[in-house]
Amino acid sequence: MAEQKPGIPKGTRDFSPDEMIRRNYIFDTIRMVFQKYGYFPIETPAMENLMTLTGKSGEEADKLLFRILNSGNYLSGVSEKDISIDNLTGLTSKICEKGLRYDLTVPFARYVVQHRNDITFPFKRYQIQPVWRADKPQRGRYREFYQCDVDVIGSDSLLNEVELIQIINEVFGKLSLGVVIKLNNRKILTGISEMIGAPDKFQDITIALDKLEKTGIENVVKELLEKGLSQQAVDKLKPVLFMEGDHPEKSKQLKNILTGSETGLAGIHEMDFIFDRLDDTGLSGSCELDLTLARGLNYYTGTIIEVQARDAAIGSICGGGRYDDLTGIFGLPDVSGVGVSFGADRIYDVLLSLGLFPEKSGLTSRVLFINFGEKEERYCLGTVNRLRQADIPCELYPDRAKLKKQMKYADQKQVPFVVLIGENEMANNYLTIKNMSTGEQKQLTVEELIEMMR
Amino acid sequence: MAEQKPGIPKGTRDFSPDEMIRRNYIFDTIRMVFQKYGYFPIETPAMENLMTLTGKSGEEADKLLFRILNSGNYLSGVSEKDISIDNLTGLTSKICEKGLRYDLTVPFARYVVQHRNDITFPFKRYQIQPVWRADKPQRGRYREFYQCDVDVIGSDSLLNEVELIQIINEVFGKLSLGVVIKLNNRKILTGISEMIGAPDKFQDITIALDKLEKTGIENVVKELLEKGLSQQAVDKLKPVLFMEGDHPEKSKQLKNILTGSETGLAGIHEMDFIFDRLDDTGLSGSCELDLTLARGLNYYTGTIIEVQARDAAIGSICGGGRYDDLTGIFGLPDVSGVGVSFGADRIYDVLLSLGLFPEKSGLTSRVLFINFGEKEERYCLGTVNRLRQADIPCELYPDRAKLKKQMKYADQKQVPFVVLIGENEMANNYLTIKNMSTGEQKQLTVEELIEMMR
Repeated sequence: MAEQKPGIPKGTRDFSPDEMIRRNYIFDTIRMVFQKYGYFPIETPAMENLMTLTGKSGEEADKLLFRILNSGNYLSGVSEKDISIDNLTGLTSKICEKGLRYDLTVPFARYVVQHRNDITFPFKRYQIQPVWRADKPQRGRYREFYQCDVDVIGSDSLLNEVELIQIINEVFGKLSLGVVIKLNNRKILTGISEMIGAPDKFQDITIALDKLEKTGIENVVKELLEKGLSQQAVDKLKPVLFMEGDHPEKSKQLKNILTGSETGLAGIHEMDFIFDRLDDTGLSGSCELDLTLARGLNYYTGTIIEVQARDAAIGSICGGGRYDDLTGIFGLPDVSGVGVSFGADRIYDVLLSLGLFPEKSGLTSRVLFINFGEKEERYCLGTVNRLRQADIPCELYPDRAKLKKQMKYADQKQVPFVVLIGENEMANNYLTIKNMSTGEQKQLTVEELIEMMR
Repeated sequence: MAEQKPGIPKGTRDFSPDEMIRRNYIFDTIRMVFQKYGYFPIETPAMENLMTLTGKSGEEADKLLFRILNSGNYLSGVSEKDISIDNLTGLTSKICEKGLRYDLTVPFARYVVQHRNDITFPFKRYQIQPVWRADKPQRGRYREFYQCDVDVIGSDSLLNEVELIQIINEVFGKLSLGVVIKLNNRKILTGISEMIGAPDKFQDITIALDKLEKTGIENVVKELLEKGLSQQAVDKLKPVLFMEGDHPEKSKQLKNILTGSETGLAGIHEMDFIFDRLDDTGLSGSCELDLTLARGLNYYTGTIIEVQARDAAIGSICGGGRYDDLTGIFGLPDVSGVGVSFGADRIYDVLLSLGLFPEKSGLTSRVLFINFGEKEERYCLGTVNRLRQADIPCELYPDRAKLKKQMKYADQKQVPFVVLIGENEMANNYLTIKNMSTGEQKQLTVEELIEMMR
């Protein structure tokens, strides 16, 4: 076989041990908090039927799906006229039935409907798995990345929103990362669309607003005018969106402005309830009502949430919201849910750039036993075994290599102690231990070593 | 949108919270043991370039690859004559550049070569990720399943084999599952091929032998004769393969039989070394030299290992071996490695059928706070907060539902305690706690509750 240059598909990544240790620190922290709040884990398959995936998160999302070629003779149901660039979508649907999931929300909705008879509602679940998007790879944007989703479905109580905000606060607190939690409500945005005389432009407004941070207000306005919003409507919209003040002040103003919109007023009342409860739990200071927050996805119907790091300009590191009918398309209508998704990759980048990862991984062996030769290695095997029985991570260097090479191995793997057992040690039943950071050596019995490692 | 019947692709699975808890018990046990022996985690992308995946594990494996349709206009490089059932492979290679990984070994080899300058050798790594195979789904065989691989690469010391056997022994010991660890060596099989006068049939012999357990000796013999082995060679082969005795006895006999094969004798010496060290560590009793063990994969060159449960007929639950040149194809020759893979799904099925999963999950909330209404829920939020600050998993029922419904929720989620806080409790600053298994109720202060939960 010819030699191949090793590489991986663009937009995908390998994770080295160092990266894995840091990633697991994030995942373990998130998982621990989810569990503390009574959420249970589930997992769904990487592949879903394309019927499940398409038409849920918008056209743009459908284009980004990775499709799996049918197994076997995938041309069997294809006629000659199917094969044409003009009919690419039609052809694709004949040769591909499955795709890789685009997010964890749609598979979750599918899961809930499929297993509804086995689920205790309200169903509090979390899910930490990779998703795939055929997006243009660029810095901080990958084609395979992990999402950490936490949702509660089957309860319309706003206490769920409060709980999710508590979870967000606790996760980032444990990660020592300062954040701002931005809140808004789709019903308030609906009210605003009505107030400016453009109730039919609600979708266009949310889609345009969602790009505000990336493109700036001029481009948002341009897009809105293109979508048919009048200049007058835009002029009415801007001061409302950029209204100043804290939640009580904004709430008061909004109640005046949206007095004619039942939906808008309902949204304000929901927001008031949430801020009240956040006050009770001492969290309202970390949260702000941001009327420009829109979230692009179609399925949100109430509260929307987005989290940004205080000290890094990296965009949203966590976001979500309430969806009133996501399961409807799969045959289970009128089930309200709310959830947020933590973006592990961006959180990783922020923690790394701010130096917030803990130094010690706790993963590496505590001791490396040097291999001096056949007799010594046999002797060491027994000692290594005793340490492992005491649950002390340790290893024996497998080859009878030069001492220097073995010490270098310990150094590079950051093993803190090295044990040397030679003729003298074997004859007198002790061992020599070397502290790799101070260079200090001393003699110990095995019992003393185990005691020391504990 | 029309209603869709929810479902998932055949051969794939959803994992419910109960299943996840049991699966994580297996993964956590395996991971803990791997780390105790000094192995570090890595992860590789689900998608690899097809060039990386194909031609590594045999033709059969290539057929089982899931291929990913190229994004965008995948027909752009395709001419009319490419599109034909007679040229399916050619067409496939034009419209698909990527595939889902088939196992973790080939991506690992690719990883080692790609990152060789950043790796400390010997490189001890583990990897726990799903793999995908377009196999015919049947009981116990899935199209998406997890492998738990542990390998050391860059050392030809047989102590690595010993260490892997210790790991196998410790993993199954911790899972309370009795196993037999079967060992053999490809070099012994080479020696046997030479001895029976069919050195060129080595590959055919291993492929046929690999099916012994599934199809029986008659079918293996039939396949061997079909592949051109003479009846005389088969007659010589059978008594060697089914030789009786423990390792020292078999070793002695083999040394006589394979006296003319240098490779065969080298294999026996390797096996002797391993069994000697297993004696030192008290493990030789769990291991047996099984000369019929062949392992189907091309790339094994030395020791091969397979593990079976003692009390369940489910086939191999863990297996692996030494490969002397897996990285050669990617441009890094002469790097020997050895590793084993734990089959999490089969281990799951065995543990479930033998009732070996621990009863307590430790995952569920310790306390559910009943929601009696607005005033009570506000009051409860503070108490819930205090418990969570003490790292006690707990939750407040989000809706103001009927008591019966809330109690049922606690029951179904197996929450052991329920806290009731009504008018009286609020007025006098205490709470009523109910033990869900005994029905016993008592009054406590918050401090007493926290103390009790610790």
